[in-house]
Amino acid sequence: MAVNFPTITAEQLHPVAGVELGFAQAGIRKADKKDLLVIRLAPQTTVSGVFTTNAFCAAPVRVCKNHLAQRRGIRALVVNTGCANAGTGALGLANAERTCAELAKQLGIDDTQVLPFSTGVILEHLPMDNLLAGLPAAIEHLKEDNWYNAAQAIMTTDTLPKAVSKQIQIQGKTITLTGISKGAGMIKPNMATMLGYIATDAGIAQADLDDLTKTIADRSFNSITIDGDTSTNDSFIIMATHQSGVTLTQGTADYTAFANTLQQVATELAQLIVRDGEGATKFMSIVVERAENDNEAKRIAYSVAHSPLVKTAFYASDPNLGRILAAIGYAGVKDLDVDAIDVYLDDVHVATAGGRHPDYTEAQGQAVMNQAEITVRIVLHRGEAHATVWTCDFSHEYVTINADYRS
Amino acid sequence: MAVNFPTITAEQLHPVAGVELGFAQAGIRKADKKDLLVIRLAPQTTVSGVFTTNAFCAAPVRVCKNHLAQRRGIRALVVNTGCANAGTGALGLANAERTCAELAKQLGIDDTQVLPFSTGVILEHLPMDNLLAGLPAAIEHLKEDNWYNAAQAIMTTDTLPKAVSKQIQIQGKTITLTGISKGAGMIKPNMATMLGYIATDAGIAQADLDDLTKTIADRSFNSITIDGDTSTNDSFIIMATHQSGVTLTQGTADYTAFANTLQQVATELAQLIVRDGEGATKFMSIVVERAENDNEAKRIAYSVAHSPLVKTAFYASDPNLGRILAAIGYAGVKDLDVDAIDVYLDDVHVATAGGRHPDYTEAQGQAVMNQAEITVRIVLHRGEAHATVWTCDFSHEYVTINADYRS
Repeated sequence: MAVNFPTITAEQLHPVAGVELGFAQAGIRKADKKDLLVIRLAPQTTVSGVFTTNAFCAAPVRVCKNHLAQRRGIRALVVNTGCANAGTGALGLANAERTCAELAKQLGIDDTQVLPFSTGVILEHLPMDNLLAGLPAAIEHLKEDNWYNAAQAIMTTDTLPKAVSKQIQIQGKTITLTGISKGAGMIKPNMATMLGYIATDAGIAQADLDDLTKTIADRSFNSITIDGDTSTNDSFIIMATHQSGVTLTQGTADYTAFANTLQQVATELAQLIVRDGEGATKFMSIVVERAENDNEAKRIAYSVAHSPLVKTAFYASDPNLGRILAAIGYAGVKDLDVDAIDVYLDDVHVATAGGRHPDYTEAQGQAVMNQAEITVRIVLHRGEAHATVWTCDFSHEYVTINADYRS
Repeated sequence: MAVNFPTITAEQLHPVAGVELGFAQAGIRKADKKDLLVIRLAPQTTVSGVFTTNAFCAAPVRVCKNHLAQRRGIRALVVNTGCANAGTGALGLANAERTCAELAKQLGIDDTQVLPFSTGVILEHLPMDNLLAGLPAAIEHLKEDNWYNAAQAIMTTDTLPKAVSKQIQIQGKTITLTGISKGAGMIKPNMATMLGYIATDAGIAQADLDDLTKTIADRSFNSITIDGDTSTNDSFIIMATHQSGVTLTQGTADYTAFANTLQQVATELAQLIVRDGEGATKFMSIVVERAENDNEAKRIAYSVAHSPLVKTAFYASDPNLGRILAAIGYAGVKDLDVDAIDVYLDDVHVATAGGRHPDYTEAQGQAVMNQAEITVRIVLHRGEAHATVWTCDFSHEYVTINADYRS
C-alpha cells in the first residue's frame, strides 16, 4: 500500500552514456527472481560513496571503502539481493573480495576497480557457487538501456521498483542523471538495506564529487526514516562518466544548477523508499525551521519522525497535537523555550505559546490528517537553521510484516 | 495482557507510620472512577523527587520543583488523573497553584508545603470546580491503611493497580517501605505519565534523601521503556517520615541495607509498569556488561530496547539475532569492536566474533524466545561498567491501542 507512489516505466529512464547494466537470476535465495546486478562504467568515470555508520557494517561495505580508498578508478559494481553478507566474519570478507576478483577477471579490469554490494538475510554466508555462476549471464545482458531491470534486480521486500531520471541543459548540451534505490525498512527476514545509485554523464573531478556525495546524501537518504533502524549495509553511490563532454567545477553557476538537479534525483529516490515503507499509509514531511543549528533541527525532526505515538496517531488520522509537542520536548535540545514554538499541520496553525492555538479547531486538524500526504512544520524561533525529514506512519501492517517469522 | 504480573492485595501493603492516604471520585474525566488522591505526611517528613526531562513539562511539575526548592517541609501531595495539565500555559500554572492553596487551607498548612501531580489528557485545562469539590471527600478518607485504594486512584489506562511493600529489620526495629506507581506507555488519549511514590518510616536527612532519590530513580524508573516516548508529567517521589525512630546516615551498613531494599521496591514498581505495558506479551531485560562507562552501557541497552524490529521479533518469538546485533551497532558508541562482543539469550550463547556462535542452534534460541520473560545479555569486553533496561515487546495490540481515536 505505497503512498502516492508515481508510475515508473522503463521508457522514462534515460540511459546514461558510459553506464551499462546487466542482471541475472542467480538463485541466491529464491528462484525466478532477478537477484544479481552488474554495472559496468566507462574509463575515466569518477565514483564516490557514503556508507552505513552501523558498527556492525557488512563485509561488502568494508570492501567498498577499501577499494574506493585505493583510487584505481572504479569500473564496475556488483549487487546481489537475498543475502547481506553481514555478521559473517573473515569468510564474509573473503567472499566479497572473491566476487570482485571473479567479475574483474571476466571484465578485464583489476579487483580493486570493482565495488560489491549485498542486501538480504544477515548472519548467513553468500552462496558463492550460485552467485559466481550468475556473473556471465549478467555480463551478457549489459546494456545502457537497462535501468528499469536494474531497479527490479535490487528489490528485496520492496513492493515497487524505484527509479528517477532527469535531464538538464548545460552549455548547450543535455546532461542526464538517472538513479535507482531500494529499501522499505529494515525488514523480514533481516532484509536490511537502503541502497541508492545515481549515474550522470557529466564530468566531475573526484574531490568535487566526494563533497557533493556527502551533501546530497545528507539531504536525501540521510533524511528519511521508517523505523529508526540503521542497517548494516546502507550504501549510496554517485557515478560521473564524463561522457557528455561537459565538465563541471565547484563554484560555477553550471555546477550549482547540476547539483540542484542531482539533489532532486536523490531526494525523490529517498522519498520513494518512504512511500513504499513497510505498512505505510501516510507520507509525512517533518520540517523544522528557525533552529539554532542544523544538528538541533534534525534532532527534533527525527524525534517527531521516530515517535511510535506520533506515527500511530497519523495512522489513525488523529490530529493528536500532544504527541507532537511531547516528541519535540524530549528531543534533548538544551534550553528549548517551548512557549516560543509554533507548530503547523500543512497550513493550519495548531500550536503556539506552549499550547493549542486559540483559533485552532479539531475539524481543521482532522481535515489535514485525512490526507495521504502531510507536512508537520515546527518553527523554533531560535536561529536560521532548518531540516526536513521524511517518514511514514506506523500501522498494523508494519507489525504483521515484521512479526512474521523468517521463512 | 500483563506479563507475569504478581497478584497484589490490600493486605500485602503495609501502612507507613506518618502517611495517610485518601481518595475521591471527583469526576475529572469520567464518572465512577477514583481520580483524586491526597497524601498527608507527618511533620518532619523529608521528601525528595525527580521529574521529567521533557522541555514541554507540565504545570504541576513546575510547581513541584518550585515548592521543593523552598524547603518549607512538604506535608501533602495531591494527584489527579484524567487531565495532565500540560501544554496549558499561564492558566495551567495558576490552576496547579490554586489546587495546592485550597488543599493547604483545608489541612492547615502552607501552600508551598503541597506537591501537585496530574496525569491524563494534555492540552486541556483542569476542571477546577470538580477537582476542588473532590478535596473534602479525599481528606475525609485519609487513613494509613489505604495504599491499595491509592494505587487504584492514580490509574489511567493501566489495567492493574501497581504497588510494592517490604519490611526490613534495622537496629532491632521494623522499617517499612511501601510504594505505588502508574503508567503504561504514553498513551491514548495522551495519557502520558509515569508516576511513582514510595514512603518509608525511616528517618533520612534531606541531603541523603536527595542523593538516594537520584540513584534509585536511575536504576528503576529511568531504566524502563515501553515506546521511548518521555512524558510531560513523569514524577518520582520518596518520602521518609522518621516515625520508626530509626535514623539512617549515608556511609553506614544500616543505610546500605535500607538503600538496597528501597532500590528493590523502586525497581519492582518500575517493572510493574513494563509488565502492564500497552499490548505487552513479553517482558525483556536488556543487560549490557563490561562497557567502558555507564553511559555507553545504557545507550546500547536503550538502542536494543527501543528498536521496533527487535520488539516485533520478540512479539513473534523469533530469535532474530541480526536485529539485536544491528541495534547494538547503530547505538552510536565510538570505536565499538563488534568482533569482541558476546550476546546471550538467557544462558544460550548466540553471537560471538561478529557473527552467530558456532555451537548455536536455532532450536536453542527458539526455546528461549517462547518464554514470556527473556534476558538479552550483551558483553562488550571494554571495561567494567554495566546497565540494565527493562522493556516489553511491540504487538498488534500496541498499534490498536494507540491508533484508536481519542474518544
